[in-house]
Amino acid sequence: MTVSMLFAYPDQESMTQTISDHLHAPIGQAVFRSFPDGESYVRLLEEVKGKKIAIVCSLNQPDPKLIPLLFFAKTAKDLGVTHVTLIAPYLAYMRQDTRFHPGESFSSKYFAALISQYFDALITVDPHLHRHKTLDEVYSIPTYVLHAAPLLAAWIREHVKQPLIMGPDSESRQWVSQVADLINAPYQVLEKERHGDKSVSVSFPQVEQYRNYTPIVVDDVISTAHTMIEVVEALKSAKMKKVICMAVHAVFAGDAFKRLSKTHVRQIVTCNTITHPSNAIDLGRSIAEVLSSE
Amino acid sequence: MTVSMLFAYPDQESMTQTISDHLHAPIGQAVFRSFPDGESYVRLLEEVKGKKIAIVCSLNQPDPKLIPLLFFAKTAKDLGVTHVTLIAPYLAYMRQDTRFHPGESFSSKYFAALISQYFDALITVDPHLHRHKTLDEVYSIPTYVLHAAPLLAAWIREHVKQPLIMGPDSESRQWVSQVADLINAPYQVLEKERHGDKSVSVSFPQVEQYRNYTPIVVDDVISTAHTMIEVVEALKSAKMKKVICMAVHAVFAGDAFKRLSKTHVRQIVTCNTITHPSNAIDLGRSIAEVLSSE
Repeated sequence: MTVSMLFAYPDQESMTQTISDHLHAPIGQAVFRSFPDGESYVRLLEEVKGKKIAIVCSLNQPDPKLIPLLFFAKTAKDLGVTHVTLIAPYLAYMRQDTRFHPGESFSSKYFAALISQYFDALITVDPHLHRHKTLDEVYSIPTYVLHAAPLLAAWIREHVKQPLIMGPDSESRQWVSQVADLINAPYQVLEKERHGDKSVSVSFPQVEQYRNYTPIVVDDVISTAHTMIEVVEALKSAKMKKVICMAVHAVFAGDAFKRLSKTHVRQIVTCNTITHPSNAIDLGRSIAEVLSSE
Repeated sequence: MTVSMLFAYPDQESMTQTISDHLHAPIGQAVFRSFPDGESYVRLLEEVKGKKIAIVCSLNQPDPKLIPLLFFAKTAKDLGVTHVTLIAPYLAYMRQDTRFHPGESFSSKYFAALISQYFDALITVDPHLHRHKTLDEVYSIPTYVLHAAPLLAAWIREHVKQPLIMGPDSESRQWVSQVADLINAPYQVLEKERHGDKSVSVSFPQVEQYRNYTPIVVDDVISTAHTMIEVVEALKSAKMKKVICMAVHAVFAGDAFKRLSKTHVRQIVTCNTITHPSNAIDLGRSIAEVLSSE
């Protein structure tokens, strides 16, 4: 799409910089600020007429970000920008991908419609697809989905001698097996039952044969960390080595990171799709490759 | 528009109840909640097919409210609602009603386009119109604008013996004079110069002739309260009686209410367009009248 200028939503400067470095495209100056009454002010300080641009805005805690983000896209178009790509390394509203109960909002569809209306393309990393097979079922703009599995595998190969890859639930099987295959490591997938937002129970496999291995629990998102903590504690009970917790997206709701850190954990490793102290794997190059492609 | 069911956005229960009482229409049950990761969940628990409904959501601190509000409207339509009215007693994004500088977002227009896309009608109270003569310049749906001046005048008539109505700036002249005329009281309008968001200087009229009067400073919005505080302090210096500060919309950014309360103030009086301890004037009946009209 040959994007020629990048913009950073507030707090996205770090990811924007790594993309810019790989893309060899400048970061444009823009103002995002709030009036004292909580209304947002957005201004582009660059000559953008006729350009294709992209803005980096990871969509964790999405609600307060939406108005400034849509205003940015609209302003850019008013200024003559021909194509605006949204780079949302973490994509929001993938959870409510059907009406589970009568009267519920079909949020994945509604959110996708809003984004599709204001942007011309979307780049994201491992969206939490479940009932939707692809983003194209809800997004009407071109979407580019990157997969972090090869980068997770590369990190493990470099940092862990004898890894045992563990998936916290059956949903994770597909890409836990992919990570394991890439580094010829054994893997196990736990069975998880979810009771509401916060309560989860796991059933535990026979891992005693792997006591000399370093267990690496891999998930796409760590949000409340309830699942991850249950798994880590079960591994501790089984007298396994300290665990590496690995996820693509460091959502970490509330004090989840602190609680997880206090368990039988050797390290918590995430990608930089959401800026967080646990970030260790950089998606900048992969995103830049999409932006510089035709 | 013969609305047959009302809904309350969170924290709007009180205003919704007063409208419901006057309209003799029930308040429908709906769920607005957040998942631990900050995404919003919306559900309507009523049979609404074929109905005309309205939701009450004052748009102070608007950004985090927008997604749940738009999801509500979209869900209602999906459930067969024929007409959704937004009752926003306080309307947001009236400030940026032009591009003051190149590259700025034209927020009043963008926000109006969003609301017009999801709702079928808008009811509001004294929007902060400046460059736009009417809301119709930016809203493409029918808009109903209520004016609080008669209710402010009625409150003053009932509570203050010898009032001097004061407008804090030339923009307020038109409706300060209207309030004063309704109760045959004298009025004065101060001249204000604004320097950025927070700094304001006022020039002071000759008010010594009104030393026996109770000064009532009337404005449409109290936000940072900087203007109001300057006016009150100038009136104190002129040895005027303690001041009644009166506004339609109790925005009160940050600690503005606390700071204003500590000055030479007898009372702070606002309408219930934004729920606040200073609310003393009820717009519920006026809004119900619009809802029950053809």
